Amino acid sequence: MAEHQLPAALPAELPRTDRTRHRRLREQGSLDRAELNAILDAGFVCHLGVVLDGVPMVVPTVYGSDGRHLYFHGSVASRSLVAAPEAMVCVTVTHVDGLVLARSVFEHGVNYRCAMVYGVPRPVTDPDEKSAGLRLLTEHATPGQWEYARRPNRKEPAATALLALSLDEASVKIRTGGPDDGDSPDAALGIWAGVLPLHSHWGEPEPDPLLPSGVQPPPQVVARSNTRAW
Amino acid sequence: MAEHQLPAALPAELPRTDRTRHRRLREQGSLDRAELNAILDAGFVCHLGVVLDGVPMVVPTVYGSDGRHLYFHGSVASRSLVAAPEAMVCVTVTHVDGLVLARSVFEHGVNYRCAMVYGVPRPVTDPDEKSAGLRLLTEHATPGQWEYARRPNRKEPAATALLALSLDEASVKIRTGGPDDGDSPDAALGIWAGVLPLHSHWGEPEPDPLLPSGVQPPPQVVARSNTRAW
Repeated sequence: MAEHQLPAALPAELPRTDRTRHRRLREQGSLDRAELNAILDAGFVCHLGVVLDGVPMVVPTVYGSDGRHLYFHGSVASRSLVAAPEAMVCVTVTHVDGLVLARSVFEHGVNYRCAMVYGVPRPVTDPDEKSAGLRLLTEHATPGQWEYARRPNRKEPAATALLALSLDEASVKIRTGGPDDGDSPDAALGIWAGVLPLHSHWGEPEPDPLLPSGVQPPPQVVARSNTRAW
Repeated sequence: MAEHQLPAALPAELPRTDRTRHRRLREQGSLDRAELNAILDAGFVCHLGVVLDGVPMVVPTVYGSDGRHLYFHGSVASRSLVAAPEAMVCVTVTHVDGLVLARSVFEHGVNYRCAMVYGVPRPVTDPDEKSAGLRLLTEHATPGQWEYARRPNRKEPAATALLALSLDEASVKIRTGGPDDGDSPDAALGIWAGVLPLHSHWGEPEPDPLLPSGVQPPPQVVARSNTRAW
């Protein structure tokens, strides 16, 4: 995933709003922009929450980030955007890092990194910004493919809606480390406690059956295979 | 994850509602209850969408499923539940299975399995149902731990809210296989195309540093380590 330098004009701490001030689990919350970017950079699928007729809808979709905006395709949100073009959305990116196995069932938990972003997505219509945004989205999920694969022609960008969501209102929650009952009375029970880590890995490239023989996967795909994703 | 037999009284096809009839990507949509259960069984973290003051909030949380209901803790939704006890939620469970690398950037995509469930969660207050639900939730995420670890005492269940969400209104979207541009003009470009799979794996158990020496991880943790999660 792309590495972002902190944009010079953005403060390192995200603003505290009514929605991002961490009512619960305060110890895990953060408004650190570098942590936000690290979580966004590590993944490429978010869960986009919109409201349709008062009912929430949560859909997974691919995103890209440049440290100031998330970009995502508009189709998944188009029902909502048509119905309420100024409607707030919530985008959540979560990486599950392991199970926290405590001495007591009640203290069991999950290690995770989670970013939540609130805002009103802006449809990107300027052709140059749209091209740059589509490139960023592609390169975020599949680095190297924008240069390698056939890039969009003039018609293709028109067929897809691109949305930009500011990273101005966002927050982070992270849980790491072992269980919390190591100094409780349960510690005397002789029950094993610790973490069972969970990792995501890229596998071996699987060629399209329709591919002519002799076409080898490009270096960026080979380099990624059999490595850890997050 | 637990295997569910189809409950005898439930039809194999989920009901088609205004929210689950798959306006988009129809070819990937399904109302097959067995597919729904397979997706829910494969994971343990969902994204719960609620509406607070008209704004969507999407939070990750642990769930369990018995094929008829999802169970999850109430704390994450408590703001919403207090504000609107009869409010609809949307719970989405997504497994990302790989990147679809096509000959053209425009055809790039993601292989995934996604379940979406809509409904009004019911607070579980009956002590027996609550105990059974907490056990189901624990066993779904951490099989074997309910019997192995110290089970909840009388006070602990009272400190946590448990919610049950019916699986009556749900749908599934699945994308599998390679790119779709193998028979397009782009196929002549000599560009590699295929899938880069993504898998989740359990790692090696990491003992709590506070654990006395000689306490070994239980069989259910050892058996799970270094296996594929989903």
